[in-house]
Parts: sequence; structure tokens; C-alpha cells
Amino acid sequence: MFSTGNPDKQISNLSESEIIECIRAWLGPSNPGYPQGIGDDCAVLISEAEGKQIITTDAVTYGKHFDNQIASEAAGAKLIKRNLSDIAAMGGVPESAVLALLAGPDLSIDWLKGFFKGIRSECETYGIQLVGGDLSSLENGNFSAVLTLIGRATSPSLRKYAGERDFICVTGHLGGSRLGKHHNFKPRIQEGQWLAKREECTAMMDLTDGLSKDLKAIMPENCCALLDLDRIPISLDAHTLSRTTGSSSVELAFTDGEDYELLFCIASEVEFQKFKESWEEYFPQVPVSCIGRFQESSQAGRIIDTRTNESIPWTEGFEHFK
Amino acid sequence: MFSTGNPDKQISNLSESEIIECIRAWLGPSNPGYPQGIGDDCAVLISEAEGKQIITTDAVTYGKHFDNQIASEAAGAKLIKRNLSDIAAMGGVPESAVLALLAGPDLSIDWLKGFFKGIRSECETYGIQLVGGDLSSLENGNFSAVLTLIGRATSPSLRKYAGERDFICVTGHLGGSRLGKHHNFKPRIQEGQWLAKREECTAMMDLTDGLSKDLKAIMPENCCALLDLDRIPISLDAHTLSRTTGSSSVELAFTDGEDYELLFCIASEVEFQKFKESWEEYFPQVPVSCIGRFQESSQAGRIIDTRTNESIPWTEGFEHFK
Repeated sequence: MFSTGNPDKQISNLSESEIIECIRAWLGPSNPGYPQGIGDDCAVLISEAEGKQIITTDAVTYGKHFDNQIASEAAGAKLIKRNLSDIAAMGGVPESAVLALLAGPDLSIDWLKGFFKGIRSECETYGIQLVGGDLSSLENGNFSAVLTLIGRATSPSLRKYAGERDFICVTGHLGGSRLGKHHNFKPRIQEGQWLAKREECTAMMDLTDGLSKDLKAIMPENCCALLDLDRIPISLDAHTLSRTTGSSSVELAFTDGEDYELLFCIASEVEFQKFKESWEEYFPQVPVSCIGRFQESSQAGRIIDTRTNESIPWTEGFEHFK
Repeated sequence: MFSTGNPDKQISNLSESEIIECIRAWLGPSNPGYPQGIGDDCAVLISEAEGKQIITTDAVTYGKHFDNQIASEAAGAKLIKRNLSDIAAMGGVPESAVLALLAGPDLSIDWLKGFFKGIRSECETYGIQLVGGDLSSLENGNFSAVLTLIGRATSPSLRKYAGERDFICVTGHLGGSRLGKHHNFKPRIQEGQWLAKREECTAMMDLTDGLSKDLKAIMPENCCALLDLDRIPISLDAHTLSRTTGSSSVELAFTDGEDYELLFCIASEVEFQKFKESWEEYFPQVPVSCIGRFQESSQAGRIIDTRTNESIPWTEGFEHFK
């Protein structure tokens, strides 16, 4: 539980300097030395890497992105990995991050320690330096953390580069993430870097709000998407969930959020089977599927089932505020 | 009021894409064109400026940093200016920002429009490009916004550069910010840039948590601070507040937060009067005061009244979690 009724174990028991000292210790080498790290009004960013600088920001909030069912380490790791998934979608290499913590005075010090353990572990795995941040207070029982992650990308595959007849591909399996994958996933950093370097790959994004919604964000203007529902890689968890939710597993694969897979396009002249063979040399453990293609259409913006030639009924992805 | 009971006027009434379209329109030219601006998994940062890159992150939360007494424009402006104050303390030039919004579904669209009006106005004044962000939901009645601001500084005056016998100086007047200055202030960007270029200025930070607490953050190890209480520039608002709070105005000047002034050090061999004359040529409207000096001491870390040679009693600044 992230908050505690025991006053001795609440962060309100520590001064801010003491909290920052704890965080410094918990982060270890993931917080670099002065002037890059914690300790001044701004952190100084030092980078020798090549490429364009890219930036993303993403939050985790108690009750929305995690709950008492998952360990604090997993919540901290999820915050880093959510942002990494955005860096992956640009084919980027992560470098530096800043963290804003918003929490009630009843936040448990032990829980926060675990949260930073998860952060540190991911920072070490992916070579991220956590260079600074901010602490501010909310009412008791609340916790949000916002990470801003900066990286480099030599040839970012932007969403709008998708071509009018491109094939539509996805990594991994979709749907059912609420059974565990929403926090228990590996961001597709290497896959994203590999894809961004391939000429065949025109555009890319990560799947966070569900295929139905995210596909619309990468769809070229004046196009619809023609999908073969038999080729949607449905996760086992989506099948499991479909038995209790009353939704079909393929619907869940379209509408569940937090897949943290890559949605990408390859040029229409590419033979997918050949592309897949190259992929499998590098990523034999990670499935890749071609699920359809774009096409210029008077039905622009729609997602169409090629078997029926009609719109797929569940075309609304996850809406944060609805 | 930032939340509304009228469902037609709540952001829950808009899809996320619609909210993002509104934000794009509200920001106007402060949101740059693709691929730098809103619209991809990451924003691409483009900078031709010289100097080291610096980064800071800071939040505003309803009920903590603003309330229903202040207009939404002022709340949005405050978010930018809080971060600018950190950039100022490094002598930096602001460049790009990303914004994470966390809000309940009952957030008023009109209020949010005003909030972005305030953001845009400050972005235009200071040449900031708002390049991306994130939306996520909280329970009804909650609102936080976290801004991460990136800039450049050619010669950042870091806190730890303060020397053992340096003079301690502050800009402006201190205390009483809760009567209005907490949002109605101008970040000391030009002053910070000027100071960072002056050889006399060794170290600098901004005053956000109160002089008592912030002075300790810039104090060299093995030193105490010797202050002349008669030289503390006490604001009129601190005098006003002292009449109703039971605290003396000088105590309020030490302990109130959110002054958003600069606290800086000048080398011990400098004649303050001469320094002040140079300052006044550039910033005739902005008072500058030398309030004391550091000294090596067995009482390291303490803030001492030179008249009594004893610690100043109110030495604890604002603690966010207490």
C-alpha cells in the first residue's frame, strides 16, 4: 500500500532534504555527479551522442496506472518503461530523465523506497541518468509521478511518414494487458531502433491506447485501413478475459490499452515475408504480424474489415476522460 | 472554478483528440510545426543556441499552488514562471517545454482554455516552444500540471560555487507572497543572465522555499551565514501580514516561500557598493541587497544574527510534506 496510517513511516516524518538524500541513495549511480545530477535549480544535460534530440513525458497515478495489487518496484519500473516505449517508437536511445513526484504526506517511505528501486533497475538496464526533479504535496491518499525522458534518434520514424498504400504491422500480441502486461512488459527499444534504421519501415508509434484508436493516429489523410481480422495477434490474456467480460478476444485486442507494442508501417513494394525473415534473425522471440494495409478511400479515417468491407464495430480506443 | 458540475462544459465531453486539437488552437504559434510540436510519441528538439543544455521540472496543483481566488490565466502563467525562475537561477535562456496534465473528468473546458491562455502568453514573452505533453486522468475535483523546461546557459552559476567568505545578496523584497506575489511576479530571467556573466557572482539560486531554508542550500560546507537583519529587504506584504499573523515581518521574510527572487553570492574581495552601481545601470527598478556573508565556522550550517551572535530562531523554511 503506497500510503500508511503509521506516522513514523510517512514521508511527512522527513524533511525535504532528508527525502532528497534518501532518493539520492536509492538511485545510486543512476543519479550522476554534480552538476548533472540532483542538487541545483536545473540539471545540466551532457550528451555526446549523435542524432536529433527527442523528448517525451508520461505519468503514473495511483488508482489509474497501478493499484495495491502490484509491488512498488513494479510501479516505479512502469513509469520508466511507459516513457521508454515512446522513445522506442522513435527508434531512439534514452539518455536523461527528470522526475516530478506529487504525493500526500501519508506516503509510505518504504513504498517510495521500492518505487525508486524499480526506477533504478530500469535506469541501469537502459542507461538512463535521472538528473533532477521536483517534490510537491497532494492531499493524503494521492500519488502521481511524472517522468520526462530525453533521448537521441538518428532517423526517427514519425507517424506522418506513413504512405498511402503501406502495410500495417504490429509486434507481439494485443489485448488483455490488465491481467498483468500493463506493468509486466519490456519496452521495444531494440526493435524500435532496428526498425527506424530499415528503409522498409516508413512510420512507427507505440500502442498504448488500443489498436482502434492508435491506428487512427498513424493513418494517412484520405486513407482508410483495411484489416484482416484473422491476422490480429491476440494475446492469451485477451482470450482469458473474453470468457468473463462478454467481449470477444479480437475486440479486446483492438480496444484494450497498454499493449506497449510497436505499430509500424512498411512500404507497399516490400514483400512482408522477406521482411519477416530479416526480423526473425534479430528478434526470434518477438512475433511480428502484418495485419492489413492503408488505401486511399472516400471512407477516410475508418478501419475496415476486409471480409465484410464494413467498419469494424469497436473503433473507439481508450478515452482517458470518459 | 477549475471543475464544473455542468456535464456539457466538462472535458469528459470531449475525446482526447478533441482536447489536443483545442490545446493546439489555444497555444497558437507557441506550439511549433511538426516534427517539433505535438503529434508524435516524442517531440524532436531543435536548438542552434550555444552553451550547456539545462533542464528543470515543476508542478502546480489546485489547492496548493493556486485556488479559486486566482484566474485560470494566472494559474497557467504561474506554471511557466515557476520553471522560468529555475532557469533564471542558472543564468539560462529558456527554449522548449513539455507539459503533463493530470485532471479529473469534471475539469472545466473554459477554465482549461484560460489556463492555456496564461501559458501561451508567457511562452510568447519568453520565447518558449511547448513541444509536447501528456494527458492523464485523476478523480473528479483534482488538477495538477507538471512542466519540464529546457534551456541553455553559457556559464551557469551553480550553488556549490559559493565561496567561504562570499557576500550574500538578494534581489527584490522578501516575504508575504501569499498576498499575491506567489503568482503575480516576473521571473528574474534577465537579471539571472546578467549575474551569471559577471565574474563577481560566484553562485546563484532562486528563492522558492524561503530564505531560511534556501540559504542553507547554497551555504558552503564548514561555513555559517552571518546576516544583518536590518538589511533584509522586507516586502510591504510581509509587513501587512505581520499585523494579522502574530509573526514579525522579518520572520515572514525568512520563512514565507514563493518569493521567486534570486539569492546569489559575490566574491569577498568585491566592493558591494560598486557592484550595486553596475546593477542599477541595468536594473534600476529592481532592488539588490547585500544581507550578510559566509564565514568558516564550528557552527557550520547555521544562520547567525550578527547583532546577537546567535542563531536566528526561525531557521526552518517551508516543508512541502509537513
